[in-house]
Amino acid sequence: MSRLCKAAVMPAPGVMPEVRTYCVAEPEPGAVLLKTLASEVYGTDVHLWHGRLSGVPYPLIPGHVSVGVIESTGGIVTDIDGSPFAPGDVVTFLDVIGTCNSCWYCLVGRASTRCPHRKVYGITLAAGDDSGLSGGWSEYIYLRPGTKILRLPCNVSPDSWIGGGCGLPTAAHAIELARIGLGDRVLIQGSGPVGLSCAALALLSGAGWVGMIGAPQARLKAATRFGVDFTIDLENSSIDSRKVSILDATGGRGPDIVIEASGNPRAIVEGCELVRDAGRYIVVGQYTDNGEIELNPHLHINRKHLEIRGCWGSDFSHVHRAIEIQSRFGSRIDWSQLITRRYGLDQVEAALRDVEAGRVVKAVVIPD
Amino acid sequence: MSRLCKAAVMPAPGVMPEVRTYCVAEPEPGAVLLKTLASEVYGTDVHLWHGRLSGVPYPLIPGHVSVGVIESTGGIVTDIDGSPFAPGDVVTFLDVIGTCNSCWYCLVGRASTRCPHRKVYGITLAAGDDSGLSGGWSEYIYLRPGTKILRLPCNVSPDSWIGGGCGLPTAAHAIELARIGLGDRVLIQGSGPVGLSCAALALLSGAGWVGMIGAPQARLKAATRFGVDFTIDLENSSIDSRKVSILDATGGRGPDIVIEASGNPRAIVEGCELVRDAGRYIVVGQYTDNGEIELNPHLHINRKHLEIRGCWGSDFSHVHRAIEIQSRFGSRIDWSQLITRRYGLDQVEAALRDVEAGRVVKAVVIPD
Amino acid sequence: MSRLCKAAVMPAPGVMPEVRTYCVAEPEPGAVLLKTLASEVYGTDVHLWHGRLSGVPYPLIPGHVSVGVIESTGGIVTDIDGSPFAPGDVVTFLDVIGTCNSCWYCLVGRASTRCPHRKVYGITLAAGDDSGLSGGWSEYIYLRPGTKILRLPCNVSPDSWIGGGCGLPTAAHAIELARIGLGDRVLIQGSGPVGLSCAALALLSGAGWVGMIGAPQARLKAATRFGVDFTIDLENSSIDSRKVSILDATGGRGPDIVIEASGNPRAIVEGCELVRDAGRYIVVGQYTDNGEIELNPHLHINRKHLEIRGCWGSDFSHVHRAIEIQSRFGSRIDWSQLITRRYGLDQVEAALRDVEAGRVVKAVVIPD
Amino acid sequence: MSRLCKAAVMPAPGVMPEVRTYCVAEPEPGAVLLKTLASEVYGTDVHLWHGRLSGVPYPLIPGHVSVGVIESTGGIVTDIDGSPFAPGDVVTFLDVIGTCNSCWYCLVGRASTRCPHRKVYGITLAAGDDSGLSGGWSEYIYLRPGTKILRLPCNVSPDSWIGGGCGLPTAAHAIELARIGLGDRVLIQGSGPVGLSCAALALLSGAGWVGMIGAPQARLKAATRFGVDFTIDLENSSIDSRKVSILDATGGRGPDIVIEASGNPRAIVEGCELVRDAGRYIVVGQYTDNGEIELNPHLHINRKHLEIRGCWGSDFSHVHRAIEIQSRFGSRIDWSQLITRRYGLDQVEAALRDVEAGRVVKAVVIPD
Repeated sequence: MSRLCKAAVMPAPGVMPEVRTYCVAEPEPGAVLLKTLASEVYGTDVHLWHGRLSGVPYPLIPGHVSVGVIESTGGIVTDIDGSPFAPGDVVTFLDVIGTCNSCWYCLVGRASTRCPHRKVYGITLAAGDDSGLSGGWSEYIYLRPGTKILRLPCNVSPDSWIGGGCGLPTAAHAIELARIGLGDRVLIQGSGPVGLSCAALALLSGAGWVGMIGAPQARLKAATRFGVDFTIDLENSSIDSRKVSILDATGGRGPDIVIEASGNPRAIVEGCELVRDAGRYIVVGQYTDNGEIELNPHLHINRKHLEIRGCWGSDFSHVHRAIEIQSRFGSRIDWSQLITRRYGLDQVEAALRDVEAGRVVKAVVIPD
Repeated sequence: MSRLCKAAVMPAPGVMPEVRTYCVAEPEPGAVLLKTLASEVYGTDVHLWHGRLSGVPYPLIPGHVSVGVIESTGGIVTDIDGSPFAPGDVVTFLDVIGTCNSCWYCLVGRASTRCPHRKVYGITLAAGDDSGLSGGWSEYIYLRPGTKILRLPCNVSPDSWIGGGCGLPTAAHAIELARIGLGDRVLIQGSGPVGLSCAALALLSGAGWVGMIGAPQARLKAATRFGVDFTIDLENSSIDSRKVSILDATGGRGPDIVIEASGNPRAIVEGCELVRDAGRYIVVGQYTDNGEIELNPHLHINRKHLEIRGCWGSDFSHVHRAIEIQSRFGSRIDWSQLITRRYGLDQVEAALRDVEAGRVVKAVVIPD
Repeated sequence: MSRLCKAAVMPAPGVMPEVRTYCVAEPEPGAVLLKTLASEVYGTDVHLWHGRLSGVPYPLIPGHVSVGVIESTGGIVTDIDGSPFAPGDVVTFLDVIGTCNSCWYCLVGRASTRCPHRKVYGITLAAGDDSGLSGGWSEYIYLRPGTKILRLPCNVSPDSWIGGGCGLPTAAHAIELARIGLGDRVLIQGSGPVGLSCAALALLSGAGWVGMIGAPQARLKAATRFGVDFTIDLENSSIDSRKVSILDATGGRGPDIVIEASGNPRAIVEGCELVRDAGRYIVVGQYTDNGEIELNPHLHINRKHLEIRGCWGSDFSHVHRAIEIQSRFGSRIDWSQLITRRYGLDQVEAALRDVEAGRVVKAVVIPD
Repeated sequence: MSRLCKAAVMPAPGVMPEVRTYCVAEPEPGAVLLKTLASEVYGTDVHLWHGRLSGVPYPLIPGHVSVGVIESTGGIVTDIDGSPFAPGDVVTFLDVIGTCNSCWYCLVGRASTRCPHRKVYGITLAAGDDSGLSGGWSEYIYLRPGTKILRLPCNVSPDSWIGGGCGLPTAAHAIELARIGLGDRVLIQGSGPVGLSCAALALLSGAGWVGMIGAPQARLKAATRFGVDFTIDLENSSIDSRKVSILDATGGRGPDIVIEASGNPRAIVEGCELVRDAGRYIVVGQYTDNGEIELNPHLHINRKHLEIRGCWGSDFSHVHRAIEIQSRFGSRIDWSQLITRRYGLDQVEAALRDVEAGRVVKAVVIPD
């Protein structure tokens, strides 16, 4: 009855994660208890470890994107089509909970990713309270009432889903803003999980050419396997040589659309330089504050007649679409191949170090 | 037959303008000879005087936005509705000529203001060649075949039109990109001709609140006369005090839309700070290169979920719309009141100095 | 404690409304008890009376758009900015309740007005259950938990708000879809409450010309008082004469945008005929099924390169915007003048007959 | 010098086409003489034959979409990138000439496909005048100055291009209006050349499901070879059975987007029925007037919250994009397989009869 489970916990900023034991609560009405199959180790988790994010309630069980099997539900809990979940269902969930649908951003601004009431599993939901199994680095996850849960169809494997991870819905949002037309030339800056998924989705959207600037080579090779036409190794090129190459590859005009998914502020100036006049520039990679860059607003914005779209987070529709994309295009794009290594709960420190050093494309925690 | 006329000419970069005499050519087929009623002195003209723009064919007759009376036409020349022009018609014209409708930007990119073949009366058309009366600081203007000429309806006076000047179609373009919804809060940065017209058009578009940051007081007073709700004197305020005031005036969220029309690169960072999350920022004032600014892409673009639109130039539709706007709303917004002073051809140096020093809102050359 | 109140009730389809007495429940947590100041009598209410709508739970207290004073709240209930409501506050509320934010239409389709779980005060919420004061034809309205309540600012009078009524937010939605540019020519078909508000909002949006086809004369005069440029009396004109007049008034091309707000299916063909090639046609008036019309898809849709937008219902943002519009533009557009007559609870039958006969622009119930 | 060539000519409405001999003029400056490789026989040509289109200048050389080899140019004639054409280049051209870039539709309405000055090769350009080889059913085509000519890259064969024919750029326009998001469900009504290309482009755009209603089986099989998920034979199904099938295949909601490419007016009502609430309906197939249909504006437009977009013609950008699409995706979609049969100039009557009877997917004229 009173089951126990293990979870990897970050006790405090700057402290090594450790494995702790928790009681597993039976789900209250509307809640769901999930047996974790896999959870992600993400760049964000490195920031959490080092205490670089504010508003984080330590001790924390990290792991915001996860996949699992339903163990039990608190009464009838349904998906968006009204179909009830049952034990044994393989599901994922929107890591964001508490988008209020009552504030100005939700109701008037139509920008629910800026809702001030939203909380994120594995980041801003604390491990300490009653229903505290709120991150994926745990044998069980307690999905509170109101969590948006989505079924994985049988042709989307847990490996595929976790291989896409947080980066895939984020990329779905960026691609939505990018409004790619058939034949458009699209350049991706950055070869991490978001960049790789952006490249995949640009290809699937009918882009006429997809290029990528990134590093290291292992990631660029993954991009090439996805079908990316042209890659440039950031570490073995200069800003000038990249410009020459990109212009050359895009008929001298530059890409119609550039998507920044690098996290490096300096990419912004280069992106503004590379995108063609009257093109579109999507900035989705700047998730943490890495300082300022020097931008020339005459050359880079006004004279270019440029459209720039910042892209923050993702909402339910992007996760929903991401599942449909994997179901549809799994044979063309194999997201599971992005998983470089799997770690047990007692190996998350190694996982964090591997992610921090860029030694892996995607690190995954397998809790059992 | 072989008429003579006077024009104010910039002989070379850095050299004082002087009045010269030209032969007036009879219009070739498709061309129109215009007797100038008024022409503008613009910030751009100050740059031309100092030789700050490249690709300018000196000696140059400046004056890119002008209004005049048709003297004669080279055969039948018609407006966009096919109605022929006749001597005595009061007209203006799109200062841009030669947009090719044959290049990638015209035909595929749908960004004709980035067409590389376009030339601009008073800026990139030389005074020296046969049909060289190609600027408005002249008793006559020779409108080459292909020039897009527009009739002023009788309720749009030449003073109104030249009071709006180049700034009004530019603002019409910026407002088109701004997509103002009824009740939206709109902040204008800059109180020059473009900024004032942006404010007027935001008011006419049903904005719920229009604020302006600018200087000097004379311009802010013109804004207030237009109906602007709230002005801040740039010269008597700090960046922090402005932020407090603007947030306070916009319910704590910041304006939904900010339009930069200042020409000052530092305005960009402040604009990104002020606009609300998931808002829209139009950059229309950075027409010359005034250097770089330090921008934080995490805070100012990505996390803000911001849309930024650079806006370059204007096309025929904006001039056409500008005339319709003046015809419709002339009783609410009196653009002629923006004219601070009128100058003869022999006074253009004083006009340039007044514009450079910001002593006038709008300086106008009356050639006769 | 156990207060009583009177309400006008429709007992069953086709049966005359009668005044009944109800117990007033104290608000449960999250609910609000409202003392009604005024409520609307709308065309929909005539349909409810005759039993023309399906899914209506008789006995029913009609009155879906209302304004009142807060009597008491069940604990702390806040507006979208988190500010708590207090007894004495003058408020209105979104008549739609129960938009689920959990279904495909809410979360993926971004079309919450098509959410199948939404209920409407005065239409689909029954009078019979515990918190049954769910329509505005009642001394009190019981606002259930989750009702979206909005404060009226002091410069928006209850008369203004109820004068705008259901038609104003609906028009705000239609105008949002219409995307009016400055100077655009806009024709409104229909001069009922929705049509009049569409005309007002088109004027406030900077339309260059606003025309209206409608009847009877009293309504067209209200339109003219709002500032509409051109009206045609539907009852004293033929379809051919209207076409000639409208083309003549719009430079021979037809209006850029036509908004149908007539409820008459035959208006659709005429609207398609009148709108210019490559124009936009908003269909917002067809709220009940009045049968079929004969449309020529070659002439009316394909060859016209026409954009047609059906517009169903309104959401919170439109009500929010409507309040801001009345607050901002109340001195230009006086919605209270649309109120033709006020009725007590015992006079609602007369009100229904007046609305049905088109003898009033706007009929209002004053319950006390 | 004074070369002769043969062309198939329609002498007058209702008269059988016959082969005539013409003098081949040397190209004037800006013109290009093209040796025809292949030209299309299209449904429009059947209408031309029967005299169903107005404004057609008989005698006429039909054939509006063609591919050929440049024989000679009148001086330097360049593509949109400024690169000059040379004899031996394999090219196609925009069938529309004379889009004026001077009228309201071109300059203000941004709807150049509604420009009243445009003429179409093979339809509204007469065979009788000096440069009269103005259709593709001819050994040579005289491309007048101003014709927009496009190079075929080496990986786009003349067979591919003519297999796509007029339908591919038309479909590119329709798909642009359709704004397909990744995973969207798209239904195509009609299996002719436009419908098949719409299906191909929907697949390439990342649609999550593409269905087609059409006939006969040969065309549906071509669709299946393209990758269409689901086809329904129009001739062996009822409107009710189709509705059940389509709802079933789209999760009970209906397709997100429906594209009508059938030419049958009755398809419009069915399309409105099938598309999901708040979906999008593109009407591109109604190129000739086939009468009226009975539409219920309440059910089909207003309550559906439907967006309907009529789509007329295509412009240069669509042809340009079509070439890029074939170059990019030729290995996935083989347009050349749409060619069912090839005809000599003396067989065009058989071609017209085959097209009229629907015995071929695509009929092609090979003039030599």
